[in-house]
Amino acid sequence: MVQNPARRTALADATVEVLARDGARGLTFRAVDAQAGVPSGTASNYFANRDHLLHQAARRIHLRLTPDPEILAGLLRGSRDRALVTALMHDLIRRISADRSGYLAMLELRLEATRRPELRAQLTGTIREELEANTAHHLAEGLPGDRETVLVLYLAMTGLILEHLTLPEVLGHDALPALIDTIVERIVPAA
Amino acid sequence: MVQNPARRTALADATVEVLARDGARGLTFRAVDAQAGVPSGTASNYFANRDHLLHQAARRIHLRLTPDPEILAGLLRGSRDRALVTALMHDLIRRISADRSGYLAMLELRLEATRRPELRAQLTGTIREELEANTAHHLAEGLPGDRETVLVLYLAMTGLILEHLTLPEVLGHDALPALIDTIVERIVPAA
Repeated sequence: MVQNPARRTALADATVEVLARDGARGLTFRAVDAQAGVPSGTASNYFANRDHLLHQAARRIHLRLTPDPEILAGLLRGSRDRALVTALMHDLIRRISADRSGYLAMLELRLEATRRPELRAQLTGTIREELEANTAHHLAEGLPGDRETVLVLYLAMTGLILEHLTLPEVLGHDALPALIDTIVERIVPAA
Repeated sequence: MVQNPARRTALADATVEVLARDGARGLTFRAVDAQAGVPSGTASNYFANRDHLLHQAARRIHLRLTPDPEILAGLLRGSRDRALVTALMHDLIRRISADRSGYLAMLELRLEATRRPELRAQLTGTIREELEANTAHHLAEGLPGDRETVLVLYLAMTGLILEHLTLPEVLGHDALPALIDTIVERIVPAA
């Protein structure tokens, strides 16, 4: 069976859209084919089973939500203060707002992980590595605060994203940038 | 049609279990009847349609996760310091850990709310009112910190609960009580 890398990526992106729209229970090969606009049977030629599809979706979301290296390098030209951490958090929310489906699909995968030990192991590994890498980066770059600062900031941002994506009116739409500023101001030391 | 209040509550509890186990897409009248161990057709005698079932599940979860007034009164005999806020957060996590299904079902409802404007309006009202009430309570009781302290603490605890319930090994099981202490210490002023 010949596999086309661009089509493989398109199928993974279609899987993410189906997850965000219909939830994990709505994820079928047929729905992925329809979403990708490819002949019926295509997705099942690329992915062995539904577990494989879920794993590839998780990998794809992780890649889609990774910061742009140029934007990151640009931000890191600033001085190591709270304002820089604030700018990094605004960039995170910008990426997630631009890929609402990606993050909603990740929430669906988190819930599906409570039912599938293998998926849980994969997601745990990915998210723990990312948190470790972010912590190491924060400390190596000399940003203000310690390991626990990064952890508490990560948890507050996770709560903010969950609230904003699922029930945005709880916090108020316009208030989002101000909320990010408040979170950083309350958790990260001034310098 | 005669309705029995105890059976109505049992059906709402069964709905919560089905949501937590199978997700919103797995929620059917048939699944609720089976979970409650009642004859097929019972749930559809109590709830007009699937939307009604989702709304009742949301109300039921809210009630299940409400603090025990006696425990709350006991905690509030302490002095108004950071240690008291920490004790209140430990009580919150104790309640959620004791009702894992309730909170997982609420996460399913949050995701379902992205697809159903009426459910979103209901959940937004419930959660906003609860956040407002918690904030007013915090300030009226003279607990340390201001309105923004309560908001940032709420977001960090939301992130902690999401992580702990879906991918507990990211943070480490044993570390949970220490994590609660750290969150309060970093967000709530000493007095």
